[in-house]
Amino acid sequence: MPDLRRDPIVGRWVIISTDRAGRPHDFAHFEPVQTTSTTLCPFCPGQEHLTPKEILAYRPQAGEPNLPGWTVRVVPNKFPALQVEGEMGREAVGMYDRMNGIGAHEVIIETHDHKDMLADLPPKRIEDVLWAYRDRIVDLKRDQRFRYILVFKNHGQAAGATLEHTHSQLIALPVTPTSVLAEIDGCRTHYQQKERCLYCDIIRQEISDAERIVADNQEFICLTPFAPRFPFEMWILPKRHAAYFEESQKTQFELLARILSEALRRMDKVLTHPAYNFVLHSSPLHEKTGEFYHWHIELIPKLTQVAGFEWGTGFYINPVTPEEAAKFLREAEI
Amino acid sequence: MPDLRRDPIVGRWVIISTDRAGRPHDFAHFEPVQTTSTTLCPFCPGQEHLTPKEILAYRPQAGEPNLPGWTVRVVPNKFPALQVEGEMGREAVGMYDRMNGIGAHEVIIETHDHKDMLADLPPKRIEDVLWAYRDRIVDLKRDQRFRYILVFKNHGQAAGATLEHTHSQLIALPVTPTSVLAEIDGCRTHYQQKERCLYCDIIRQEISDAERIVADNQEFICLTPFAPRFPFEMWILPKRHAAYFEESQKTQFELLARILSEALRRMDKVLTHPAYNFVLHSSPLHEKTGEFYHWHIELIPKLTQVAGFEWGTGFYINPVTPEEAAKFLREAEI
Repeated sequence: MPDLRRDPIVGRWVIISTDRAGRPHDFAHFEPVQTTSTTLCPFCPGQEHLTPKEILAYRPQAGEPNLPGWTVRVVPNKFPALQVEGEMGREAVGMYDRMNGIGAHEVIIETHDHKDMLADLPPKRIEDVLWAYRDRIVDLKRDQRFRYILVFKNHGQAAGATLEHTHSQLIALPVTPTSVLAEIDGCRTHYQQKERCLYCDIIRQEISDAERIVADNQEFICLTPFAPRFPFEMWILPKRHAAYFEESQKTQFELLARILSEALRRMDKVLTHPAYNFVLHSSPLHEKTGEFYHWHIELIPKLTQVAGFEWGTGFYINPVTPEEAAKFLREAEI
Repeated sequence: MPDLRRDPIVGRWVIISTDRAGRPHDFAHFEPVQTTSTTLCPFCPGQEHLTPKEILAYRPQAGEPNLPGWTVRVVPNKFPALQVEGEMGREAVGMYDRMNGIGAHEVIIETHDHKDMLADLPPKRIEDVLWAYRDRIVDLKRDQRFRYILVFKNHGQAAGATLEHTHSQLIALPVTPTSVLAEIDGCRTHYQQKERCLYCDIIRQEISDAERIVADNQEFICLTPFAPRFPFEMWILPKRHAAYFEESQKTQFELLARILSEALRRMDKVLTHPAYNFVLHSSPLHEKTGEFYHWHIELIPKLTQVAGFEWGTGFYINPVTPEEAAKFLREAEI
């Protein structure tokens, strides 16, 4: 019998239907993500002139901007979806609303070495990537035009990456994305009823149930959610209540790097280096959500060939139970 | 300058960023959808024993069930996502909610001829497919366990079709999908403020603006929405207010078949037989939405290689303006 489960945050029901597929090797027909070419990669050291001028870089031995010597480098996206300069231009078009596409679109190059993948970097180097996210968020937050900053990663062509040199992206938006708004609405309603954070409640129940935990340390937990949209979907959450990623303590960045590294390596082991996406959901910049929203990372291996249908319906059929996915991930030898 | 536009129904902002791509031929690297094989296709006449027993079929010359002679045939999905028999089993799992995967999952085989595509059928035959949707909805509506019936079509492998013989699917669900709930919420709020249907307001503005209209007849309009998520996304709506697809008049089915045929042929012409999805959004079965919800079809050619990122954010970047898409579609010679 298939199982219908409700996501307690946004109220989405998903079908967990294990009759159709289920074991990790059922997904093995997808190509493992590999790095193959270094020819004229604009993200490689020595090619810095191929990107717009850098916004931020970490250089262990100091050194000049836009020259080699960096380990993490942040540049504007050469083909930005949004433009930094200009007026907001909010206006009505008859009954409709539009505004100018004002925003920032940046690329975080996670390592100088074209052959590295994020999962292969030592946790200390992953921590640097997280610091780069944080530094850029702190800087962009000062721009009062922006309402939301979205950090995300597309890894592998199947997950939407167009360049193979490992990188993440950041988009600062003058609006908050609907999926974040839906989470905030769910959390606000729960808080109004119970004066507790909904994600904190989830974490307590998950620690007590134990069957959906993938990894765990003093500050963070990685779990497969009760009502996942996708096979092997994972969430990473701070165990202590926190609404803003960028306000994390230094030791938390260290422990987040460790658990992210572990989650990626477990995923790579069980699913043979799949393409994946992750998204950092933190609070909107100018809303008072501190008491009831809880920042987190959603990590989604790109395994199923499903297409536009889910976009049209918000309706998901998942062939793997999160309990089974968590068990495979947790027990993988890494 | 990119354009940020707000969908007036669900409040979703999308980026229309035309710097990156835009002309129909930019999407031409996708394979046109073709039918190639008839070997042992379970949807072909003579192979009726390969599907579960038929639920409905239209046979112009009458004849026996589960034998050739049909032009439209509806069968249970052989690998159903949901199961018809059983109890609802609603229960709490700690703080979570689950229920049994009760529902119906049916396949509407749109023609006996493996070589036909829906767009190639004469409008009269497309009308029969619409009648099959309607007949199945009317029948399944009697089952008080179901809350929503979703009709959709995946055309071509890139759009999630696993069998090439042209078909649509129907899923009866004990819950309403979140994307329909979001539309209903938007429409209800508008109705409470203005005592007008939001979709009716949109249709009036679109007829007056004229620049996003693709096709039009006495009863239906096909348009590209003001804030489309996807390039060449189209909506087909009844011009007169109507909340329930299945309550349409006989002449409306005829005119819907005509406009759907035209929309598909215009899309095929401009985009060279793309893979596509469509979804029929009608009212939930037991909610009083008659005054403010407006049924419609959303038609989405599968052109962009975007992946899980949109799923994680609800945030869309569309490289084609709907005005330009509508112009290409409207002016195509078919």
